[in-house]
Amino acid sequence: MQFIATAYNLLEKKAGYCNTGTWSSKAIKEAKLIGETIELSSSKDANFNYIPKGFDIPSGLDYLHITTNNTIFGTQYKSLPETDATLVADSSSDIFSRELDFSKFGLIYAGAQKNMGPAGTTLVVVREDILGKVSHAIPSMLDYSIHADKGSMFNTPPVFAVYTSMLNLEWLKNKGGVGAIEKENNAKAALMYAEVDRNPLFDGFAAVEDRSTMNATFTLNTPELKDTFEAMAKEAGLNGINGHRSVGGYRASMYNALPIASVQALVDVMKTLEQNA
Amino acid sequence: MQFIATAYNLLEKKAGYCNTGTWSSKAIKEAKLIGETIELSSSKDANFNYIPKGFDIPSGLDYLHITTNNTIFGTQYKSLPETDATLVADSSSDIFSRELDFSKFGLIYAGAQKNMGPAGTTLVVVREDILGKVSHAIPSMLDYSIHADKGSMFNTPPVFAVYTSMLNLEWLKNKGGVGAIEKENNAKAALMYAEVDRNPLFDGFAAVEDRSTMNATFTLNTPELKDTFEAMAKEAGLNGINGHRSVGGYRASMYNALPIASVQALVDVMKTLEQNA
Repeated sequence: MQFIATAYNLLEKKAGYCNTGTWSSKAIKEAKLIGETIELSSSKDANFNYIPKGFDIPSGLDYLHITTNNTIFGTQYKSLPETDATLVADSSSDIFSRELDFSKFGLIYAGAQKNMGPAGTTLVVVREDILGKVSHAIPSMLDYSIHADKGSMFNTPPVFAVYTSMLNLEWLKNKGGVGAIEKENNAKAALMYAEVDRNPLFDGFAAVEDRSTMNATFTLNTPELKDTFEAMAKEAGLNGINGHRSVGGYRASMYNALPIASVQALVDVMKTLEQNA
Repeated sequence: MQFIATAYNLLEKKAGYCNTGTWSSKAIKEAKLIGETIELSSSKDANFNYIPKGFDIPSGLDYLHITTNNTIFGTQYKSLPETDATLVADSSSDIFSRELDFSKFGLIYAGAQKNMGPAGTTLVVVREDILGKVSHAIPSMLDYSIHADKGSMFNTPPVFAVYTSMLNLEWLKNKGGVGAIEKENNAKAALMYAEVDRNPLFDGFAAVEDRSTMNATFTLNTPELKDTFEAMAKEAGLNGINGHRSVGGYRASMYNALPIASVQALVDVMKTLEQNA
């Protein structure tokens, strides 16, 4: 919903989008319904296995939209684009996972279901001064000004999802906050990618410098071991490691809630597979 | 969200709306953003205390929109408007409360939070043949065709709200379904309105023939007893009976989940107030 809401609230003349995969593409498609939408960069040429950098950003953009983490392809922005335009981010899959200079953003939105709480609510953080600048009418439920004015109570709120998100954020705060979980996430990712790089049976999918700490994508380069590997993973209690069909291979999702022991379990299976091969 | 989605999906030339209060007014406001929206009837002249009937319905409407139950004013359609136009209903506050000839509707939508489950999901029932007829583009999240094609899994579904709604609907089915709960709802409403009509201290707000079985609205005609009545109601464990500010007085909401014993408790307080007066 925030794809269309972003454009409804902010797109007056033209907006710039960086296309880093499935979710960016959907965001671009919806924004085009509202106004001029320019794809400023894309990594589609390499099946989105990297984050484009060093592209030209024209002046006069209403905003520049990025997807900070790309679940399917396992890429993540490590630094933010340098721009004078208002920066807008879909951070659905890495919100609350790391510290960023949040003062650089005009708008961040994130579905709850990765690092915040159960599916059914969405976090929107918006700088008030960027709202109210478009000349077209905005449907009330998509109008961030209305939600802000009503204290997020314009509609009947999804109480369970909001309350459970609060409990989860209290848990995060009590363990030291985003800075503390970032250290854990970095440790999990380091463990995971070290094995991907070390193990001759596996290849990383995403460009090394753009690797996501949330979703590690990799392939098995010995197809005849596929069934064995997957049976061993299942035996070790590892679920959901098959990659998205547009990438293939495997994807280890390591959101805030995943303990490092689970990453170690996968790494152990990968090592054992190599030893037995 | 369904106010704007209804118009996005169905409004090509012109739509007719019946204005029976706050929610209808909001629906009309949002539809006007999409196309020609005609208010065919309104009971605003009497603070929405009745359901307009016998008004002209022009030919060529894309659809006719009604709000089957009006929570704030305590009115409810007892029969559906006779029309050849596609009938569209916001049934948020009386879905699953009574049997209706559902074959007459092209689209029914209802927020879960009255009779279905927790806040955070919405039921939409739509006849497939009325979709795909508009010439404008529809944002994907508002496009009922997409949700239908994807089996309501286009977005990550709000699992808790959907699952809990299922449990509640199983409860309803096990007690005999809509027909059985309708009898209970009629008994609760009969008990409530009988006391409103009998007790000389109280006056009903809604026109008798349009009284809602879900929300009974009434006023205390002896202002000096207000504090006493409210203290007695609180003492009896009755909460949330103050009317909406646009009506004043009192409102007894009697959704499916409310047992008749709770209605009896309010009736007992009203009787005691009269005896002590």
